[in-house]
Amino acid sequence: MLEELKQQVYEANMELPAKGLVTYTWGNVSGIDREKGLFVIKPSGVDYEKLTPEMLVVLDLDGNKVEGDLNPSSDTPTHIELYKAFPEIGGVVHTHSPWATSWAQAGRPIPCYGTTHADYFFGDIPCARSLTAEEIAGEYEKNTGLVIAETFKGTNAIYVPGVLCANHGPFAWGKDAAEAVHNAVVMEEVAKMAYRTEHLKEGITEAPQELQDKHFFRKHGENAYYGNDI
Amino acid sequence: MLEELKQQVYEANMELPAKGLVTYTWGNVSGIDREKGLFVIKPSGVDYEKLTPEMLVVLDLDGNKVEGDLNPSSDTPTHIELYKAFPEIGGVVHTHSPWATSWAQAGRPIPCYGTTHADYFFGDIPCARSLTAEEIAGEYEKNTGLVIAETFKGTNAIYVPGVLCANHGPFAWGKDAAEAVHNAVVMEEVAKMAYRTEHLKEGITEAPQELQDKHFFRKHGENAYYGNDI
Amino acid sequence: MLEELKQQVYEANMELPAKGLVTYTWGNVSGIDREKGLFVIKPSGVDYEKLTPEMLVVLDLDGNKVEGDLNPSSDTPTHIELYKAFPEIGGVVHTHSPWATSWAQAGRPIPCYGTTHADYFFGDIPCARSLTAEEIAGEYEKNTGLVIAETFKGTNAIYVPGVLCANHGPFAWGKDAAEAVHNAVVMEEVAKMAYRTEHLKEGITEAPQELQDKHFFRKHGENAYYGNDI
Amino acid sequence: MLEELKQQVYEANMELPAKGLVTYTWGNVSGIDREKGLFVIKPSGVDYEKLTPEMLVVLDLDGNKVEGDLNPSSDTPTHIELYKAFPEIGGVVHTHSPWATSWAQAGRPIPCYGTTHADYFFGDIPCARSLTAEEIAGEYEKNTGLVIAETFKGTNAIYVPGVLCANHGPFAWGKDAAEAVHNAVVMEEVAKMAYRTEHLKEGITEAPQELQDKHFFRKHGENAYYGNDI
Repeated sequence: MLEELKQQVYEANMELPAKGLVTYTWGNVSGIDREKGLFVIKPSGVDYEKLTPEMLVVLDLDGNKVEGDLNPSSDTPTHIELYKAFPEIGGVVHTHSPWATSWAQAGRPIPCYGTTHADYFFGDIPCARSLTAEEIAGEYEKNTGLVIAETFKGTNAIYVPGVLCANHGPFAWGKDAAEAVHNAVVMEEVAKMAYRTEHLKEGITEAPQELQDKHFFRKHGENAYYGNDI
Repeated sequence: MLEELKQQVYEANMELPAKGLVTYTWGNVSGIDREKGLFVIKPSGVDYEKLTPEMLVVLDLDGNKVEGDLNPSSDTPTHIELYKAFPEIGGVVHTHSPWATSWAQAGRPIPCYGTTHADYFFGDIPCARSLTAEEIAGEYEKNTGLVIAETFKGTNAIYVPGVLCANHGPFAWGKDAAEAVHNAVVMEEVAKMAYRTEHLKEGITEAPQELQDKHFFRKHGENAYYGNDI
Repeated sequence: MLEELKQQVYEANMELPAKGLVTYTWGNVSGIDREKGLFVIKPSGVDYEKLTPEMLVVLDLDGNKVEGDLNPSSDTPTHIELYKAFPEIGGVVHTHSPWATSWAQAGRPIPCYGTTHADYFFGDIPCARSLTAEEIAGEYEKNTGLVIAETFKGTNAIYVPGVLCANHGPFAWGKDAAEAVHNAVVMEEVAKMAYRTEHLKEGITEAPQELQDKHFFRKHGENAYYGNDI
Repeated sequence: MLEELKQQVYEANMELPAKGLVTYTWGNVSGIDREKGLFVIKPSGVDYEKLTPEMLVVLDLDGNKVEGDLNPSSDTPTHIELYKAFPEIGGVVHTHSPWATSWAQAGRPIPCYGTTHADYFFGDIPCARSLTAEEIAGEYEKNTGLVIAETFKGTNAIYVPGVLCANHGPFAWGKDAAEAVHNAVVMEEVAKMAYRTEHLKEGITEAPQELQDKHFFRKHGENAYYGNDI
């Protein structure tokens, strides 16, 4: 069932340790088949070294398990809310990658200081507000997804393919699981460089808007003309 | 003798260089068999590349060598005091991992800035006080353990599975040697992110208490429901 | 056609991931045959793992493709302007290497704080001015090259074999593609150490001029006597 | 000739890239046979990947080449002055390792903030003064060694087995080439942790003297009782 999607989601999950984004099992990737309304996600608590495509879990968007012997990632309800809120996305990833998580812990959006950022994210990478005590006490993982969706009201989720959750860490997404992980890697790199940029100059400001526009729109939208090298 | 425990403690020791926690031989792991009252520890001064399970040393809690050709780690008296003070633990590890050691050198506990920390440590990771000149001149390694035990008076050592020793470095522990090393890796990662968090925002405060509670208790205690991915 | 040059440029491109200078495809190297007036450059959007010498694209200095099935790197017009402005160079490289890019994002030249820098770069590594809105809206990649050339008016491009582009990242060059990449690696290392140097001492000043002169001219110019170790 | 020493010095040189202390050829190690008054050093400008024990150069303490087809490292006159000034040492190493070099560029000695430092270096790791314009214009590499020797007047070079040269980088030494490299690795690690320690606490002070004494003298001197693990 969904063998091709499982293979893609498996490979996207394995990209996390390969790119140094996870310590132990601190990450999970999912990918969705929009036509069937089913998505595939990493099982909970399985080491990456032991993960196989067959271990992945298939669920519907109500959270019902459709296939799989293992429990799905505990963050599954967050993934579901993101798929519901952003119908244009096909893959979701959550990590505790250290640079992005440090920004999340500081509760700060990542400003756009350069073209590396602007090539992938249009404007700041936002930081979602803290959950209320009630939201934490209730359906916490689901509410995490709802608060992200709230943060993106009026924002194009494809143009800003990631977010920081305050005191927690990053989520990223894309048209499929591979692109979601690609964007998570970019966010980590951008988070690192933004930190260092701020420590090289006081009163730093964002990159000029026309430069941000140029870099973003030469790779995205109708007038894109730029390949993968940036 | 204690072959299975030796294998476990051997593997836990080898995890230190694999995870980048040690330079040269700057670390040691032990594991205990509580029924027999015996523990197994790395020998002193042996390179990790040359370490074998047979080289490990078996001692009782009075520090008497029960088996082994080599001398036990010079930090053995500290391990003994931790086993005595915290009867619920089954493994201990000491390293000079660079991020945790930097906090120790600054004499500061590591504040809980996010869920990565809260998933493993309930509240701050404490920094034990400096030893007095008398404690240093006397049984230094034993006194190091006693000062850690003093620091944890009234604290649940299972809920806070690690400590910093002022101007020295971290100790961590767990239900067995593998979990002790796992917690040492988490402490290093958390120490790194806390440093960066403080440099991203002035006047930073700890993560909201309800968020800390949620993350800690969804993985620990009677109502835990969460797997290994966080 | 130009098989030897293609092999050199291929190897120089592969040195980028080997030295940790690129994430994904964020870099490109070219090398020129001055007699024939043709240069060889990485194709656009090809992963380094899949790159072969045959995939490289051959162009003339008017930007006409002379050989190759793939599109040349989108930064090709910048490379062309550098070859035109600096007739003494034979190779060009562009990356988003994180330390150099952080300085570029801060809009700051890298001061010469020590002999590692002075062994390769004579004086500051300059930061080219931001492009105007008109320059960005026009032939952006070409104008990037023109602004670099403007920055180097009166500067010996062989003595200062690299530059930062504001809010963007570094370009470096050399007598051939291999030396260009070598200089890009040095710039990244120097950028890292300069950052840390500034955070170790307030009011830091550049290395004494006589020390800079000594180190640069014992390796460059007529009286050079020094080998590759520094 | 001196085959065993050559093998030792070769292995010590190869430890530099293995431990991440050098970029390209930015380092050199030598070892001396005190009875014969001859020392062995890395040739100038040879990549570590291509280095073999046979390529090493043998010289006497007047700088005369006794054996070898290649030129000795350009830093040879500095090594010679160190062997002359410190008769108790048997190996010398020079690198541009990034953390130690950052301290050197800041012109600051590395304070002793903890036991990792105190286990190997007794007190601060000093920073030698800048050379005068005359010293630079004259026999620069020899004068570098003389200024180090001047810095250590009254200091036990075995108790403080390394130094920073202002705006340049570190030298380290030991009873043989292997120990010299070991101390260079320790200095780099200590330099990294001292930097971070200072950024974690304002008004930081050195580790208590009694703790420094304890750690240093449990590993060095007549009353040493401690193995290699610290």
